[in-house]
Amino acid sequence: MPRLAIHRLAMAHPGDMSDLAAQISAGKIEPKAVRAIIGKTEGNGGLNDFTRGYFTQSLMALLSLHTGEAAAALAARIPCVLSGGTEGALSPHAMVFSVLDEAPPSGSRGLALGTAFSAPCPAHEIGRMAQVEAVRATVLAAMGDAGITRPEDVALVQVKAPAPQSFSPDHPPRTTDAKLAMALSRAAAALGVALALGDVPTVTEEALLADTSLYTNRASISSGIEVLANEVVVLGHADGWAPGIGIAVRPMADLLDLPAICTAFADLGFTATPSVPEAERHRILGVLAKGEPDKRGTIRGQRHTMLGDTDLDAQRHLRGALGAIVAAVAGDGRIFCSGGAEHQGPAGGGLICVLAREG
Amino acid sequence: MPRLAIHRLAMAHPGDMSDLAAQISAGKIEPKAVRAIIGKTEGNGGLNDFTRGYFTQSLMALLSLHTGEAAAALAARIPCVLSGGTEGALSPHAMVFSVLDEAPPSGSRGLALGTAFSAPCPAHEIGRMAQVEAVRATVLAAMGDAGITRPEDVALVQVKAPAPQSFSPDHPPRTTDAKLAMALSRAAAALGVALALGDVPTVTEEALLADTSLYTNRASISSGIEVLANEVVVLGHADGWAPGIGIAVRPMADLLDLPAICTAFADLGFTATPSVPEAERHRILGVLAKGEPDKRGTIRGQRHTMLGDTDLDAQRHLRGALGAIVAAVAGDGRIFCSGGAEHQGPAGGGLICVLAREG
Amino acid sequence: MPRLAIHRLAMAHPGDMSDLAAQISAGKIEPKAVRAIIGKTEGNGGLNDFTRGYFTQSLMALLSLHTGEAAAALAARIPCVLSGGTEGALSPHAMVFSVLDEAPPSGSRGLALGTAFSAPCPAHEIGRMAQVEAVRATVLAAMGDAGITRPEDVALVQVKAPAPQSFSPDHPPRTTDAKLAMALSRAAAALGVALALGDVPTVTEEALLADTSLYTNRASISSGIEVLANEVVVLGHADGWAPGIGIAVRPMADLLDLPAICTAFADLGFTATPSVPEAERHRILGVLAKGEPDKRGTIRGQRHTMLGDTDLDAQRHLRGALGAIVAAVAGDGRIFCSGGAEHQGPAGGGLICVLAREG
Amino acid sequence: MPRLAIHRLAMAHPGDMSDLAAQISAGKIEPKAVRAIIGKTEGNGGLNDFTRGYFTQSLMALLSLHTGEAAAALAARIPCVLSGGTEGALSPHAMVFSVLDEAPPSGSRGLALGTAFSAPCPAHEIGRMAQVEAVRATVLAAMGDAGITRPEDVALVQVKAPAPQSFSPDHPPRTTDAKLAMALSRAAAALGVALALGDVPTVTEEALLADTSLYTNRASISSGIEVLANEVVVLGHADGWAPGIGIAVRPMADLLDLPAICTAFADLGFTATPSVPEAERHRILGVLAKGEPDKRGTIRGQRHTMLGDTDLDAQRHLRGALGAIVAAVAGDGRIFCSGGAEHQGPAGGGLICVLAREG
Repeated sequence: MPRLAIHRLAMAHPGDMSDLAAQISAGKIEPKAVRAIIGKTEGNGGLNDFTRGYFTQSLMALLSLHTGEAAAALAARIPCVLSGGTEGALSPHAMVFSVLDEAPPSGSRGLALGTAFSAPCPAHEIGRMAQVEAVRATVLAAMGDAGITRPEDVALVQVKAPAPQSFSPDHPPRTTDAKLAMALSRAAAALGVALALGDVPTVTEEALLADTSLYTNRASISSGIEVLANEVVVLGHADGWAPGIGIAVRPMADLLDLPAICTAFADLGFTATPSVPEAERHRILGVLAKGEPDKRGTIRGQRHTMLGDTDLDAQRHLRGALGAIVAAVAGDGRIFCSGGAEHQGPAGGGLICVLAREG
Repeated sequence: MPRLAIHRLAMAHPGDMSDLAAQISAGKIEPKAVRAIIGKTEGNGGLNDFTRGYFTQSLMALLSLHTGEAAAALAARIPCVLSGGTEGALSPHAMVFSVLDEAPPSGSRGLALGTAFSAPCPAHEIGRMAQVEAVRATVLAAMGDAGITRPEDVALVQVKAPAPQSFSPDHPPRTTDAKLAMALSRAAAALGVALALGDVPTVTEEALLADTSLYTNRASISSGIEVLANEVVVLGHADGWAPGIGIAVRPMADLLDLPAICTAFADLGFTATPSVPEAERHRILGVLAKGEPDKRGTIRGQRHTMLGDTDLDAQRHLRGALGAIVAAVAGDGRIFCSGGAEHQGPAGGGLICVLAREG
Repeated sequence: MPRLAIHRLAMAHPGDMSDLAAQISAGKIEPKAVRAIIGKTEGNGGLNDFTRGYFTQSLMALLSLHTGEAAAALAARIPCVLSGGTEGALSPHAMVFSVLDEAPPSGSRGLALGTAFSAPCPAHEIGRMAQVEAVRATVLAAMGDAGITRPEDVALVQVKAPAPQSFSPDHPPRTTDAKLAMALSRAAAALGVALALGDVPTVTEEALLADTSLYTNRASISSGIEVLANEVVVLGHADGWAPGIGIAVRPMADLLDLPAICTAFADLGFTATPSVPEAERHRILGVLAKGEPDKRGTIRGQRHTMLGDTDLDAQRHLRGALGAIVAAVAGDGRIFCSGGAEHQGPAGGGLICVLAREG
Repeated sequence: MPRLAIHRLAMAHPGDMSDLAAQISAGKIEPKAVRAIIGKTEGNGGLNDFTRGYFTQSLMALLSLHTGEAAAALAARIPCVLSGGTEGALSPHAMVFSVLDEAPPSGSRGLALGTAFSAPCPAHEIGRMAQVEAVRATVLAAMGDAGITRPEDVALVQVKAPAPQSFSPDHPPRTTDAKLAMALSRAAAALGVALALGDVPTVTEEALLADTSLYTNRASISSGIEVLANEVVVLGHADGWAPGIGIAVRPMADLLDLPAICTAFADLGFTATPSVPEAERHRILGVLAKGEPDKRGTIRGQRHTMLGDTDLDAQRHLRGALGAIVAAVAGDGRIFCSGGAEHQGPAGGGLICVLAREG
């Protein structure tokens, strides 16, 4: 019977694997059982954030040492979804998802994890229907990997989608603007998830980044040049998995939607009125949040300045704000907080997801 | 009988006085009654933040037009305390404090405001006992101006303290490091307030920035090169003032002290569980918050990255995080959120202050 | 007989007019004779750079005091072309261009200055043929103002072009992307200049930002939300103007085109081999440079990192580099160095312009 | 007979070793002969610049693959001196220094390279006389390694000095300010070099960062937390080395000292009037430059804004400016340009070093 386990890693810098090494030595983490990593590194989260590549290289090297499998092979089967930028109260950390095969099987039902990779996505397919379709199919494959049979049993889909690295003159990309290409990739991936889960009925290429009424509240998407394929991690409920881990996902209506965050924690039995008390915090296994600087330039009618700041990227503004609100509820800065929430919630909003050991 | 009135200004940019002009035209703000301004402008909050000077110049020019008093004379008697930096959810805005003389007098007691300016503080006195003493005396003068007779009746002291502009070789300053000089000025002002209010018994020059056990929870200090004297605004309760405005001030133990924020709102009758509902928000007249990037490099044991970021100033990190948490409770981004909380709360902590129309 | 005079102002900060006040008091600058200002302020040069507005407000207030003309009227007739950003070796400063009417007339020929403003340019005309045409006509008007009769006598056209502040739903703008709108405005203005000077035969809207083969080497364009019309300053040679000031303008093939800079100085008789010696520097009246981060991502085959830096805007990178190279030749950091050189030189290149008292 | 060889690497990002792999495959670089690396990566150059660690990890992994020597052992014997920050015209690159043992020996004399590592330097010795002494001794050891017998034969000493990572309460460091500690480490290393070369007679701890009259023009120092010991590379002339590579080192009086740069190139036979022509550029093997934002706040009497910019680190300003000036002479952005030139030249100045194949 498979059992999902989640461990959190601290890091002194993006290349510091001493905590992972210690948890492996202590027998807490079984290297061969690692199936996915979701983490925050302390870069700027933008095009020139190399902390993601540094962490991935360091991680795969250590896992390779312990498993005997080549680092490149590990990277091709273990999604490593990193978001750069630990502004404000956020703390660099990673969640390591392992699946352990533990006897005896039983008639239980629990939180399941599945992963899948699409074929490499060429630059000219990014932000087009080809990518939407590829992600849709990859989500279904990851659901199959987890043994999740019904879309309504999916709690969250985390995708790392590719950004174009170079262009072929024979196959022009949808845009040559690197930031726009990253946003289009997130949009295509989000709507691919939405199709797979039945959260939207149909999608056209024109709708990407344009029709904000189309979204799913169960997708968290990052894009970056460090991946070539769409890498998908699905979390949901399936028969035959060991119980013990709860997941709560709630949409956030806007950046200041503190009640949604408290509700997500309350869904899992926490006393979040308003902050999770210290005595309960040990149950938290991971917290994820997605959000967006509201493109209308205001939040609840008051002007914000995130979008026009030449010195400070809008996503750094967003993460510092959203991350702090979530951390204030969780009582802990280890929040996977990421911007770029296109089609992952209402315009200007986002989502909150809590993973916890059942109380 | 004096009555305190607080109006909030929106601004499209730091030189935009159209909202003030409109509120004057509409008879809401009486230019001659303006006694103090506390506001946030959208600069970087650092040494080269000129949005504060631009706002002040624009404001004093408009008030001069309406009062016939020279702009320089207005600037010499009306404290204009600005904090640059509206990171994340924060919204540029200003609070205009007016005192109206309204009949009939009565035996009432209400929220009082007093102001005072110290003599110009030369560069070599900044961050030294001379400044501590000057601020102590100026706070007492501002209390007298407000008619506040007992230190325990003071709710909050807002100070704009000078930073050195230039040095005389005959009178060496305590430091030639501009950032350190600004911090020393805040420290001296905070401990001057603490002495005046009896929150600490004695102060020595060596204690500035060193002895974090010395602090008051009733001071909010900014420093900047745009002022030459210590400018003090005192808010507290006094006989003979019209009732109608409540104030709540609470210390924050650390950056994530969300309960303290909710409690401050609850003190004034708001249903902050966890956010102030839309129907109650019209009562809010102003919210102030001070905080600090924890100098130990961790918050509740988790590493933060605010202090070692070469690209993004630690105070910008701090304001984006603290401001968002407070805004999420208030339901509104118009928070006067300011970093540099030396001796204004426990190490790594700060304070929250809410001003509201009584319900 | 008109005589052009150029004075340079130092400033301690963007609102500091003490040097202008001193030069007026000393009789060096005649307030009523001021016709144009071109300067560098120390902001970030981007959308949220308010140092330009602060300087302009401070300058017009001082000129108003001395001329008795309302500040708004002065701003409507005196072009004040500011570029934010004094990275690296650059020094904040402004050039004040005055035209003095001095007897006796004679048959001389000298450097002439003319100015003209287009009608206000609505948001939906920015970056379209309407703006190209408006700038073309305004350049011709400014040439007429200067008495310059032949396009080949024009040495340099400096334009401050508007950026959209708000949009009407009835008249959609060409783009809602603020940075792109600023670039389109610069492109339209540059090609309007090119048409007026005969440097390109025809222009279509599609060519803006697309056809890099279309350019003039005699235009220097800035755009910003602080102006509503296209403000044009023309410098060139005309009969009836007093001699005494020389101008040299040279194209720069790329960012590292140091020989072009030395040649421009040599054109005016300087010994720039490679730097202007101290004994000759007093003759320099002003230096202007325009350039661009090469959009191909390389300079002479080596990769540069200006275009993909999330922490540091590409134009700040560019100004720091170009400004330093020019300053190293001039021996002085007072260079009007500005990015955004679309259609103002070859792709990745720019121009250098030197103004000097004749030796 | 040893022969020094220098190869330059391009990189698409800090973890990209494809150029090194290609040069190894092509037989150009012999992995076992690599003795030192000096390079620029595209980070911010500050405390949180992890591009240096990422490059080093990637490089040592590749060399380990080719030499069979453990990566940690390679890192302990091959100095890898990286400077982060490729602002403006600068291009990410690295210089690989190899020493090949080639017959036949002869009576020749040529450019020699020697390396040495001090013992690990504990945090409390950084910026103190213990570090000065350690660097002095390590320079002498590196000279011995190169076979350089006289101080006057040393052309340049490149040092990578440690910055404190953590502190022991039993051994307090000289400062807990991380930036200051890095500067003190550079200062101690520079004066250690100066003592070894006889460029200053004596040094006291109080002189570090204080007595700017003490300096050597033959040291280039970086400091960072990625090293634990003082790593020294010495370049100079010694008997028994193959001829063929020339080195020129010149002091720069200030940031705008363009003539010094041209002179250094001219020293090696280049026609740098002012730029090295394309036909000669193939001879350039490496260019190094050190400089400082002038702490007086002015350059040749004009105010600069590098030191008070809250948004942009002073060293990023400096590198963008200095790097561009040097690149404009070299005609190539591959310049090892680094700030932090304490005691490595006169106040506000620095040095320029050119390595070239003899013509």
